[in-house]
Amino acid sequence: MAQPQQSAGAEAEQPPLRVGMVGYAFMGAAHSQGWRTVGRVFDLPRRPVLAAVCGRDAAAVRAAADRHGWAAAETDWRALIARDDVDLVDICTPGDSHAEIAVAALAAGKHVLCEKPLANTVEEAEAMVRAAEEARERGQLAMVGFNYRRVPATALARRMVAEGRLGRLRHVRVTYLQDWLVDPEFPLTWRLRKEHAGSGSLGDLGAHIVDLAQYVAGEQLSGVSALTETFVRERPLAEAVKGLSAAATGGTGQVTVDDAALFTARFPSGALASFEATRYATGRKNALRLELNGERGSLAFDLERLNELSYHDGTESPAHAGFRRILVTEPEHPYLDAWWPPGHGLGYEHTFVHQARDLVHAIAEGRQPDPSFADGLQVQRVLAAVEESAEKNSVYTPIAV
Amino acid sequence: MAQPQQSAGAEAEQPPLRVGMVGYAFMGAAHSQGWRTVGRVFDLPRRPVLAAVCGRDAAAVRAAADRHGWAAAETDWRALIARDDVDLVDICTPGDSHAEIAVAALAAGKHVLCEKPLANTVEEAEAMVRAAEEARERGQLAMVGFNYRRVPATALARRMVAEGRLGRLRHVRVTYLQDWLVDPEFPLTWRLRKEHAGSGSLGDLGAHIVDLAQYVAGEQLSGVSALTETFVRERPLAEAVKGLSAAATGGTGQVTVDDAALFTARFPSGALASFEATRYATGRKNALRLELNGERGSLAFDLERLNELSYHDGTESPAHAGFRRILVTEPEHPYLDAWWPPGHGLGYEHTFVHQARDLVHAIAEGRQPDPSFADGLQVQRVLAAVEESAEKNSVYTPIAV
Amino acid sequence: MAQPQQSAGAEAEQPPLRVGMVGYAFMGAAHSQGWRTVGRVFDLPRRPVLAAVCGRDAAAVRAAADRHGWAAAETDWRALIARDDVDLVDICTPGDSHAEIAVAALAAGKHVLCEKPLANTVEEAEAMVRAAEEARERGQLAMVGFNYRRVPATALARRMVAEGRLGRLRHVRVTYLQDWLVDPEFPLTWRLRKEHAGSGSLGDLGAHIVDLAQYVAGEQLSGVSALTETFVRERPLAEAVKGLSAAATGGTGQVTVDDAALFTARFPSGALASFEATRYATGRKNALRLELNGERGSLAFDLERLNELSYHDGTESPAHAGFRRILVTEPEHPYLDAWWPPGHGLGYEHTFVHQARDLVHAIAEGRQPDPSFADGLQVQRVLAAVEESAEKNSVYTPIAV
Amino acid sequence: MAQPQQSAGAEAEQPPLRVGMVGYAFMGAAHSQGWRTVGRVFDLPRRPVLAAVCGRDAAAVRAAADRHGWAAAETDWRALIARDDVDLVDICTPGDSHAEIAVAALAAGKHVLCEKPLANTVEEAEAMVRAAEEARERGQLAMVGFNYRRVPATALARRMVAEGRLGRLRHVRVTYLQDWLVDPEFPLTWRLRKEHAGSGSLGDLGAHIVDLAQYVAGEQLSGVSALTETFVRERPLAEAVKGLSAAATGGTGQVTVDDAALFTARFPSGALASFEATRYATGRKNALRLELNGERGSLAFDLERLNELSYHDGTESPAHAGFRRILVTEPEHPYLDAWWPPGHGLGYEHTFVHQARDLVHAIAEGRQPDPSFADGLQVQRVLAAVEESAEKNSVYTPIAV
Repeated sequence: MAQPQQSAGAEAEQPPLRVGMVGYAFMGAAHSQGWRTVGRVFDLPRRPVLAAVCGRDAAAVRAAADRHGWAAAETDWRALIARDDVDLVDICTPGDSHAEIAVAALAAGKHVLCEKPLANTVEEAEAMVRAAEEARERGQLAMVGFNYRRVPATALARRMVAEGRLGRLRHVRVTYLQDWLVDPEFPLTWRLRKEHAGSGSLGDLGAHIVDLAQYVAGEQLSGVSALTETFVRERPLAEAVKGLSAAATGGTGQVTVDDAALFTARFPSGALASFEATRYATGRKNALRLELNGERGSLAFDLERLNELSYHDGTESPAHAGFRRILVTEPEHPYLDAWWPPGHGLGYEHTFVHQARDLVHAIAEGRQPDPSFADGLQVQRVLAAVEESAEKNSVYTPIAV
Repeated sequence: MAQPQQSAGAEAEQPPLRVGMVGYAFMGAAHSQGWRTVGRVFDLPRRPVLAAVCGRDAAAVRAAADRHGWAAAETDWRALIARDDVDLVDICTPGDSHAEIAVAALAAGKHVLCEKPLANTVEEAEAMVRAAEEARERGQLAMVGFNYRRVPATALARRMVAEGRLGRLRHVRVTYLQDWLVDPEFPLTWRLRKEHAGSGSLGDLGAHIVDLAQYVAGEQLSGVSALTETFVRERPLAEAVKGLSAAATGGTGQVTVDDAALFTARFPSGALASFEATRYATGRKNALRLELNGERGSLAFDLERLNELSYHDGTESPAHAGFRRILVTEPEHPYLDAWWPPGHGLGYEHTFVHQARDLVHAIAEGRQPDPSFADGLQVQRVLAAVEESAEKNSVYTPIAV
Repeated sequence: MAQPQQSAGAEAEQPPLRVGMVGYAFMGAAHSQGWRTVGRVFDLPRRPVLAAVCGRDAAAVRAAADRHGWAAAETDWRALIARDDVDLVDICTPGDSHAEIAVAALAAGKHVLCEKPLANTVEEAEAMVRAAEEARERGQLAMVGFNYRRVPATALARRMVAEGRLGRLRHVRVTYLQDWLVDPEFPLTWRLRKEHAGSGSLGDLGAHIVDLAQYVAGEQLSGVSALTETFVRERPLAEAVKGLSAAATGGTGQVTVDDAALFTARFPSGALASFEATRYATGRKNALRLELNGERGSLAFDLERLNELSYHDGTESPAHAGFRRILVTEPEHPYLDAWWPPGHGLGYEHTFVHQARDLVHAIAEGRQPDPSFADGLQVQRVLAAVEESAEKNSVYTPIAV
Repeated sequence: MAQPQQSAGAEAEQPPLRVGMVGYAFMGAAHSQGWRTVGRVFDLPRRPVLAAVCGRDAAAVRAAADRHGWAAAETDWRALIARDDVDLVDICTPGDSHAEIAVAALAAGKHVLCEKPLANTVEEAEAMVRAAEEARERGQLAMVGFNYRRVPATALARRMVAEGRLGRLRHVRVTYLQDWLVDPEFPLTWRLRKEHAGSGSLGDLGAHIVDLAQYVAGEQLSGVSALTETFVRERPLAEAVKGLSAAATGGTGQVTVDDAALFTARFPSGALASFEATRYATGRKNALRLELNGERGSLAFDLERLNELSYHDGTESPAHAGFRRILVTEPEHPYLDAWWPPGHGLGYEHTFVHQARDLVHAIAEGRQPDPSFADGLQVQRVLAAVEESAEKNSVYTPIAV
């Protein structure tokens, strides 16, 4: 049997932070790696302990606990959130169960980290925000897991925008391009069914880019005009799923979510934005691309080269100006002083280590962590406006506030 | 005094093709370079002769004639099109005079090459198409100058799409990003006044990318949903203009065109498209970027690296697949067998050499050159739909046919 | 107190593999991360246990043990290798102690993993090879830690060369460029003293690229012609060191190693090679760049973009050929089926996870792991020939066998 | 019949500069394009006139004259240099005839532009320098055609080094990689025979990179250590040649030049350099890559992306530093104020336009143009030292002065 994994050493003066995680698939594996590693790298005020993991299949969750280093395994999330040895509930399930688990966990006196998107509907998200606000009165904190804020390059981008290096923003353009649905024989996983996933590319990829664009820009969208499409409407039924891949079983079923979502948008500052989320961009594996153009400078980022940030300083002499590739691996960069020497890059999973670090600090200090459930709700409202606009012939649709 | 420039040698069996050009600024210089060079590089059935150039200022047009190699200079375009020694009228003026000159030139029995956009309004463009169709009965040919079809890399892209290498198209995304208006003190040139330019980024940059995207994709858009914006509404009055730059004089004036235009669109095949045209993308100098994703492959192009085409073959083994940089300088590539050895790249101006080549061949063979005035009108209709959608709260607006 | 970290779950049928590590600085941290993570990701026949770590300063090693998850701490490496609960000794100290520790550990019946370069001199390395050969008779295995063989992209490169995709090799060019010594005020760390480091860029960076180039090419160099240089011969004395950085204390001292080493070389197949190792390439942080050109294809790699491998298939039609960027994150790629979905990249530290994986498998199966101490000795002989050539006016110097 | 081509208009106050060109193959076509275009773009003090071209085959040279715009055609270079209407002799023949033609042309009172390499041997080059020095007394000027100094990006690089932006140089690394000899069936052109070409990659590609590296660095190499190789020693005999390609005829012949040359070198300042010239780098079409690292900054250039210069400013904060891509198309950049708006790139052929511009100015002003025949001789001495070192087991060989 695996021992409980602990992070951080003697410098932690506060009690350990005991984590209970619900779900152990792709996101569960990534969160586990984050919890296991964070205290080995960062100085933390509380030491995370991987107390218990929860899943419906007893043998599978037991194996996952052993594999990922969780001390105990549960098969009912209600039992998990009832455990005395759990301080924080980390929700890594599909979106249709987020609201119920999060509200119950908060009611049970736990802190909560909830994977994105916060919920499948605005109504669910509103309930979660209410629960989080009440819980905060009691000292419990809730955060939504938009991990791409924790890529050092995107955190640096945010810092540079906040420092005024871009000046007044004119343009934000963001795409999140993947290609795992190009093959019409790819099977119908839960991600392609509205009842589980809420939406398709929109909730999965679009939620990420809406949050990231708003975070880096430092303002929230005021309205959108959208087109969505489902290219392949019938797919083979799926049986086993691993990561984003799956094996087909007999029969076919309906795809009930969007395959792609495009929308233009306005920021209150006057900046224009464009968004595209799709799983049909052949050859693009994880191309979350963000570009901001401001009166004084520009930034560009591509998640397929996550250790880099491209920056143009518009105040330089034209004779020597140009987009520069900042290799975001210097100790001066966000999160980097705890890692390897310059040029020794990080990977995707480190966003979860950084997310864990930031959450542990917020909880130890009694501060609201970012992004809050309210931030998650606001993203949900953007997605709802996208769907509404798409249904209404792309008419410009304000974001509810 | 400069001698008339001639291209091509003894192999030309047909009579020379005597060109008269109206306008001699940025576009006029580029067209001149095209006409002077084409017969030095390509075997042509008719030898282009730079017969006469026309501009309003007698001294300036005389100097331009000397500089660029035109035998004669005229100060009235009506005189130019009346000349017996002109077979083809090449229109390089701002959009507000295209219709009048083109219709008159066709009426005078000349072939016509007209810079893009074809006209400032759909109505003007329709009149030009009618004139072109009548003229064609008489053997005269008309073409619109969408020169970016003549970049070897975009011509290769078109060929690859036509060969079926991308399979069914899913996505087309195109941006044309420049930054020469970022500075609010940049003066008010004719390009910023609706009465001369028709529209702003939309007609200047947007026309290019609408034409190019449709050309490469091999189909025409069915509808659009658009946002446009004028970021800086008042600018210093301009005095002298060189290329895209200009010096300020006293006073200010209204910018009456769009600074940026974003639109999403649908193709009849079901593919989704997104377009962005702006002159406020700090650090982007000429970033006409085109990406197409199809079921079997993808292509990407950036005018800032115009000798390259990026191609992903989706039918390859995932173990070895990836976007490849095709250096489009091989004799197997469009236009390239007449140029330098592999790896010895071409530049922007060569698009005008290639345009001249294709037009000379079409005229010599009595074929309709591409793109026709009808193609130019169709682009104009897309731009009109963009403006209509932008005025109507971004509602999805079908393209008139 | 930290619990001993364990990896891998119930599937491990063989006894745990208990690791004792000597040294806990940069390399120690990286190895710790490898040992902690490997069993969480890969299915392993033996479960690694972080049994004990060793360093000279009792408080510091205790803190490092807590931080990195080692159950026990020792202050004398002789005590560490004498422990019954250690099966494998992992040597992460500077090169001057490698030979003594490794020979003793093997004599004590342990398996050994030794950081590169294997030793500071050929003589030491020869002694280590003898010890390893004797130990192997007794079932103990020894490996040298050239971790860059374990980047998925370099492992893929090796596989592609072995498959014949490059055909007959003509050229290999390799550089390893860093810039942390550009500032002449950077202090004199142990890496700049011959008695500790053996050599400078040559042993630190040059050893990596000699091993990697030979590994990917599949053959060993036959001779070299070299230039070396020490640009800055006197530096401030150092006090504290972290990663590759350090703080200065009073006084100055002599740099007694090379700052840069350049050499050309021949492979027995007739291919030519060039090598450059330097810490003075301003702006290059970790630019280990490898390019191979063969009669049928070419490969290129840059450690600053470690998730990518560039490949040109020379057998394709020139019309569509080009260097393609393989994003080495597919399940078909080496090590990748255990990690994240395509496009979700790995980082530097994962090379140590993969190294641990390969070593555990070799030990469990009683196979000699690669690279062996003999491979490490051969690299040492190349470095010795480089130094000899540099001393002898660059004359071509065969590699001893 | 083609009219004589003239460049530049009424602003030229001095008499025309009448050019006679010897040779009309690849280099002749490129020079013709330069002479025809230069006065159309740049303001020049003397107007170039394409007076006469010379080749051995009467019909072919007549066709070339028509094609490229030369007024007259000659079949004997002695007749060409005897013409009264020729002021400048432009030598575009293979290297074995450079010395004889240049010395005779200077003796005949002409200015001379001679293609690189200046000659096939040091002795020939010395004779040419003597002739040029004597001629200069009489007011005639001689220049060697290292056209890659006239890429705007390399000229910018030179300017930035001269401004001190790199500080003290530490490293220069240069490669010139092509791949047109990879196929062992590619025929034996004159470029593969020592009696015509002098050497192989070394004289063709190596001469370019030696000149360019020295020019940008601002100093001349002091010594070299070299390896050369001929990979394919027997090839089919060639018949027709076009550009760098050729068709095979019956039989085979010996390759008597090097296929590849690698050398390391030292600059007097203490900087180290490495050079590689090859025609066997599969997939590299024209990869002249230059990188300089100095104490304060670095530059990198690749001829396959000739409109770009990469620059790292080492004095910036590490938080925002990075290699920037300067798009060398701004009016602030060398040669660019005469061309197109920013972002509208130039191509290979424009180096010849710029070369013509610089030469016309120097002649009009009575100044020695750069690079002089003495510069060409010095490059020849570097190549000779490379050959000597390669013959003497790579021993470090000083450059003669």
